[in-house]
Amino acid sequence: MDEFALIQRFFAASPSPGTGVELGIGDDCALLRVPPDKTLAVTTDTLIGGRHFPLETPACDIGWKALAVNLSDLAAMAAEPRWFTLALSLPEPDEAWLAAFTQGLHTLAKAHRIALVGGDTTRGALSITLTALGCIDPHRALRRSGAEPGDAICVTGTLGDAALALQRLQSKADLTTADVELARRLNRPEPRVAAGRVLGALASAAIDVSDGLAADLDHILESSGCGAELEAESLPRSAAFAALARDADEALTLQLHGGDDYELCLCLPQDRVAQAQDALTRLDLPLTVIGQITQQPGLRLRHAGRWRALSSRGYRHFTS
Amino acid sequence: MDEFALIQRFFAASPSPGTGVELGIGDDCALLRVPPDKTLAVTTDTLIGGRHFPLETPACDIGWKALAVNLSDLAAMAAEPRWFTLALSLPEPDEAWLAAFTQGLHTLAKAHRIALVGGDTTRGALSITLTALGCIDPHRALRRSGAEPGDAICVTGTLGDAALALQRLQSKADLTTADVELARRLNRPEPRVAAGRVLGALASAAIDVSDGLAADLDHILESSGCGAELEAESLPRSAAFAALARDADEALTLQLHGGDDYELCLCLPQDRVAQAQDALTRLDLPLTVIGQITQQPGLRLRHAGRWRALSSRGYRHFTS
Repeated sequence: MDEFALIQRFFAASPSPGTGVELGIGDDCALLRVPPDKTLAVTTDTLIGGRHFPLETPACDIGWKALAVNLSDLAAMAAEPRWFTLALSLPEPDEAWLAAFTQGLHTLAKAHRIALVGGDTTRGALSITLTALGCIDPHRALRRSGAEPGDAICVTGTLGDAALALQRLQSKADLTTADVELARRLNRPEPRVAAGRVLGALASAAIDVSDGLAADLDHILESSGCGAELEAESLPRSAAFAALARDADEALTLQLHGGDDYELCLCLPQDRVAQAQDALTRLDLPLTVIGQITQQPGLRLRHAGRWRALSSRGYRHFTS
Repeated sequence: MDEFALIQRFFAASPSPGTGVELGIGDDCALLRVPPDKTLAVTTDTLIGGRHFPLETPACDIGWKALAVNLSDLAAMAAEPRWFTLALSLPEPDEAWLAAFTQGLHTLAKAHRIALVGGDTTRGALSITLTALGCIDPHRALRRSGAEPGDAICVTGTLGDAALALQRLQSKADLTTADVELARRLNRPEPRVAAGRVLGALASAAIDVSDGLAADLDHILESSGCGAELEAESLPRSAAFAALARDADEALTLQLHGGDDYELCLCLPQDRVAQAQDALTRLDLPLTVIGQITQQPGLRLRHAGRWRALSSRGYRHFTS
């Protein structure tokens, strides 16, 4: 089966018809209508096999995750997902793999009503680059640069699950039902799109937690020109995480520096925290205050009653 | 140097400030303003080292070409380039390579006033995926599906240069000054953006010639539900091509099936051909009539006074 037949079979039809698609897959470009009162939000993320996910990851999970990490970026801007393109490199035209990949991708695409509008399929090392496009009211866009001293720092959901899942999978420990829950967090992250859109009107700044809380929060601090204090005891944990983390120090490290959580880290004026938490309760998603923005630069952590400076190092490529 | 420092250094600033950029590189998404009377055109293309270009290709040419192939898709829709994102996978964070790559990329970006607005840099096999965004008057968009029986089939520029250049480079023949000209066509293709925009108001259908004339024209025929007759003697050749092609049969094969030309293949009502040629004369670009659209399906070639059926096979990935 050649490239064109492959594309036609697996990617010819978008799983979601999409809003504003004048011309979808199959021409030199897709043609898309952005509503006149909206701003376009664009993000691109690559997943590379063996680097961003273990090569033995089920293809359906890879398809899901490749879209999820891009939806997470749209969520962090408070944008509404609309369209995406897919650039897929595969070592072999494996039909079973493609069918499973497409199934995972399309399941998440349907859930978020985002339409596949184009792409490219090539032979090469396993690599997936998605470009996701969304629409947003210009005054609701959540930038990294808007945090103010005194703002509460909040995160959606729980932290550390994905990093612990990866550690457990790699350790070849006997896996429990709690591991199954954690693995779902690693392989099928739920991008916080609805939460982002609700909080676009309330938060002062946001980022998604992909490289680790400390590293991602640090981007907000750099962009906003301020510092932060975090409370170690406040970092939200899932029941599965609490059951499986080996010791307190390791748990804290995973929560601060583990990647792949795809939760949102948001800064909120203190008087809007309760309203934001109420709004997310309706989405069945906890929003936890974990610290506050400070005028003094740097990132500090209070742990067991003591303050210490916190390095921002999360997961980084090319670091020797 | 880690990933973030790399990105900051080489891709922090767009070479072109860009139109409608509310927020560029450095947040979770770029924020872009599409004029209310315009449609957004989006295309994604991947270049893989050793597959789409020889690994010894100069990095500055790779940077140029990665953008050129995407601009060519915008050109084929008659769209005006606006913004692009860059997903770059590199085996090593090689500063000299990155500097040269960026220089080639930025030179072409400046020439077309297209702004780099985001992207992702990862460690992996050499692979470049660009997503290019453009704007277009909706009624001027050139689709593949609009060709009508009787339309003239035209191409911009000359055909076969890039394929002959690749063949000559691989054959390790003694290279002449004509080879230098051909190599420029292979490594530094000039996307026909201005031509596409001028012809958007005149042509009935268009595609860019990336996989070979026959294969790309076949996409128009499939989309438009018609056939075509081509005249072998009409296929336009550069002086360098004429000087270096070994024999007539091989020359014809390269012109029909060689990839990487990035010229435009357009269908035009006969009474608009002269106007279209005049318009391109002002761009110093020839527009050559090479055949016509027929009601009868299939692609036929007249060569040395005889008609023969022509296969559409150009360069395809995954073909065994």
